Amino acid sequence: MGRRILVIGGLAAGPSAASKAARTSPDAEVVLYEQGEAVSYGVCEIPYHISGEVKAEALSAFTPETLRTTRRVDVRILHRVEEIQPHRRTLRVRNLKDGTTSEERFDRLVIATGSRPRRLGFEGEESRNVFRVKALDEAYALRKFVSEERPRTAVIVGGGYIGMEMADAFTSLGIEVTLLHNSSLPMKSLERETRERVREELEKNGVRFVGMAQAAAFVRGREGKVTHLVTGDGSYEAGIVVVAIGVEPNSDLARGAGIRTGSSGGILTDQRQQTSVDNIYAAGDCCEVKNLVTGRQVYIPLATIASKAGWTAGENAAGGNAVFRGAIRAVAVRVFGLEVAQVGASEEDAREAGFETVCETITGWSRVAVMPGSERVTIRLIADRKSQRLLGANVSGREGAVLRANTLAVAIQQKVTIGEMQQWDLAYSPPFTPLWDPLLVAANAMQRKLRSP
Amino acid sequence: MGRRILVIGGLAAGPSAASKAARTSPDAEVVLYEQGEAVSYGVCEIPYHISGEVKAEALSAFTPETLRTTRRVDVRILHRVEEIQPHRRTLRVRNLKDGTTSEERFDRLVIATGSRPRRLGFEGEESRNVFRVKALDEAYALRKFVSEERPRTAVIVGGGYIGMEMADAFTSLGIEVTLLHNSSLPMKSLERETRERVREELEKNGVRFVGMAQAAAFVRGREGKVTHLVTGDGSYEAGIVVVAIGVEPNSDLARGAGIRTGSSGGILTDQRQQTSVDNIYAAGDCCEVKNLVTGRQVYIPLATIASKAGWTAGENAAGGNAVFRGAIRAVAVRVFGLEVAQVGASEEDAREAGFETVCETITGWSRVAVMPGSERVTIRLIADRKSQRLLGANVSGREGAVLRANTLAVAIQQKVTIGEMQQWDLAYSPPFTPLWDPLLVAANAMQRKLRSP
Repeated sequence: MGRRILVIGGLAAGPSAASKAARTSPDAEVVLYEQGEAVSYGVCEIPYHISGEVKAEALSAFTPETLRTTRRVDVRILHRVEEIQPHRRTLRVRNLKDGTTSEERFDRLVIATGSRPRRLGFEGEESRNVFRVKALDEAYALRKFVSEERPRTAVIVGGGYIGMEMADAFTSLGIEVTLLHNSSLPMKSLERETRERVREELEKNGVRFVGMAQAAAFVRGREGKVTHLVTGDGSYEAGIVVVAIGVEPNSDLARGAGIRTGSSGGILTDQRQQTSVDNIYAAGDCCEVKNLVTGRQVYIPLATIASKAGWTAGENAAGGNAVFRGAIRAVAVRVFGLEVAQVGASEEDAREAGFETVCETITGWSRVAVMPGSERVTIRLIADRKSQRLLGANVSGREGAVLRANTLAVAIQQKVTIGEMQQWDLAYSPPFTPLWDPLLVAANAMQRKLRSP
Repeated sequence: MGRRILVIGGLAAGPSAASKAARTSPDAEVVLYEQGEAVSYGVCEIPYHISGEVKAEALSAFTPETLRTTRRVDVRILHRVEEIQPHRRTLRVRNLKDGTTSEERFDRLVIATGSRPRRLGFEGEESRNVFRVKALDEAYALRKFVSEERPRTAVIVGGGYIGMEMADAFTSLGIEVTLLHNSSLPMKSLERETRERVREELEKNGVRFVGMAQAAAFVRGREGKVTHLVTGDGSYEAGIVVVAIGVEPNSDLARGAGIRTGSSGGILTDQRQQTSVDNIYAAGDCCEVKNLVTGRQVYIPLATIASKAGWTAGENAAGGNAVFRGAIRAVAVRVFGLEVAQVGASEEDAREAGFETVCETITGWSRVAVMPGSERVTIRLIADRKSQRLLGANVSGREGAVLRANTLAVAIQQKVTIGEMQQWDLAYSPPFTPLWDPLLVAANAMQRKLRSP
């Protein structure tokens, strides 16, 4: 008889864990509970659906049916898990279609309850022209609202990467965008100079960026819509509002079962994705993750991490012995024509973690400078003076920034020193890279700085 | 009193060494001898000059004057070094303008005599419509010939990367191209399936690829031009001919001074770029280099290696203690719309070096599959079963292939295992990368293969 492996949550980590469990243990029974109707859709693609670049059908990688038939996962949508009873190894599950509850036995459990968007917390937030970018039905509603009611103005609250993507999407639809952010510059995790560049790019493309803004209230009009968003400093007309001020972990269910959580509220796991309670694993946005640069447990709600951690949880729930070592934090975003990426630690994070940081910024070319199409690539490196290791980087430019950032991401994970970077033998070809790739230019500049006192 | 540092050769490694020597030792006298008229020009950009993408002025990074004024290097063009007298630490130098010779004393010498194109070795090779892609004056002559005489047909002898680039350049000018190659598929250093793909791309773009061709003779016509190239199997009309069958090291001068060379004929150096003779360094296409994957001394005549080795030679000639550890072999080329890159060892090289090779090929997407502009990226990995290390890779596709190859280049140099690759935390953003980047898809597929017996 095979194990009974239950998985809670159908977005990223859940399907990843369930599929991997079913593949690892062919005789296991794998059941996945999802309280909504959709599973396995791409939250990150939603802004591109709003802009019209990605079709609605393309948002979902799997339906409940394809997960069942191709991955051997028994998917129960519209089922909400209301309680985990770890000692009895059971779940109390409510069927949202008929309201009944049942008790479900498990041998192993994977919690992948994800995250929820933060709320502003004042009246009007549930108006029918105020949206968050997370749930699939809300995304469809947003798209429908935009195409049917054609708002002339949008206010986006939050200057993180979803704010950037939505500003781009709305602008491409001819909607005038005001972006409110609670700091003087967008994209908090980036270095100051990159953030300035992002702001310039927003403004160059007609987005009104309002820094140090504290959203305080909505003004409500007719038809259940808000008309303005009021901050401490002014009032902004809003045919539509998007609230994108981050997410927080859905960890109440786990906490109710006595499972340990960290300072962010995210579930704590070991490298095998096991929680503090035997036989219960967790993965994805409901968890914290180890930052491989600083060594600290942190909250990084990203699909890349969720899918890898989910795999690990699923394999181990099925009796395997997989390890997910952690993440460095690797983020990329398109801000209109600009590629922006951050990998590894920010200078601030690195300092707080006790490193003696040294930073250097260079500008190189995406291709040989004289080739048509060559664009400037700006790289800021953050290194540790003592170990000479690369800790983090920002890369931005109109071409070839994100993929170069990924090379640096690998370097950070492999703990390379700046001296090793200088030796990198990289492919050079005029249409793609200069003789001295910006990565090498950056390494050489950093080495000079490390050598100077 | 500063040292007198002499450098022979003005193309890639020479200016690099001379500049670095002058910067390292501000009181040194640095003199560079170049037998031609131009220094520091981009051989790799020549095909793009022929196609018209790069202007003539843009081919040279430095003139003798700018090297003198900005880098403090005393450049003597039209000076040929005829003999190195190591025991007396002198050079015999001929001034080609007036034919006189002089004896030049050195404290340290850097040999950067580069390489020369291989010749077919039969009559007609010096005809005025037969060209090689190497010397700057020959490049200008080629461009002039094409624009003035507008040949209708071209025969390219050699299916390496210069052959690819010239086929592209000629085709873009409306010239009908026949490409003769002495193997059944182009690009000898690539894996078989990549080579097949390159051939398809050539043929799709109207290039006639003739494999297993042995060029045997030219048919000469009027006006000092050849009209056909004859092989064992046929005769090919040629309004213009390009011979691109590789290069060989210019190491006679060094050998005459008793300096050791390797099996390829290239000069042997240590990691400090010192030759077998005290006080004499060498760098660039005249040298062999250590292959960091196989551990062997090999001949890899590439500008990337020349410039780094040149730096090292220059710094050490000036009293420094720099090290150039070697190269993995990293090559990229644009074949019409296709990006093609090879990094690290080929399967054959790896096997010959004693590795138990395991190969796996995957196809992923350059961006999220459903995003407009997303293109397939094919990656073939070559790993070692015993150490589980990545040894080499081929990457090809219409977008995002070369920069991903460079990430693999770093991985090879940092000796990562496939297990480590699977853990890579990479930035994900729909316009630039899929959730599972092709690099991760490749790592996962390779891991499955390594685990199977």
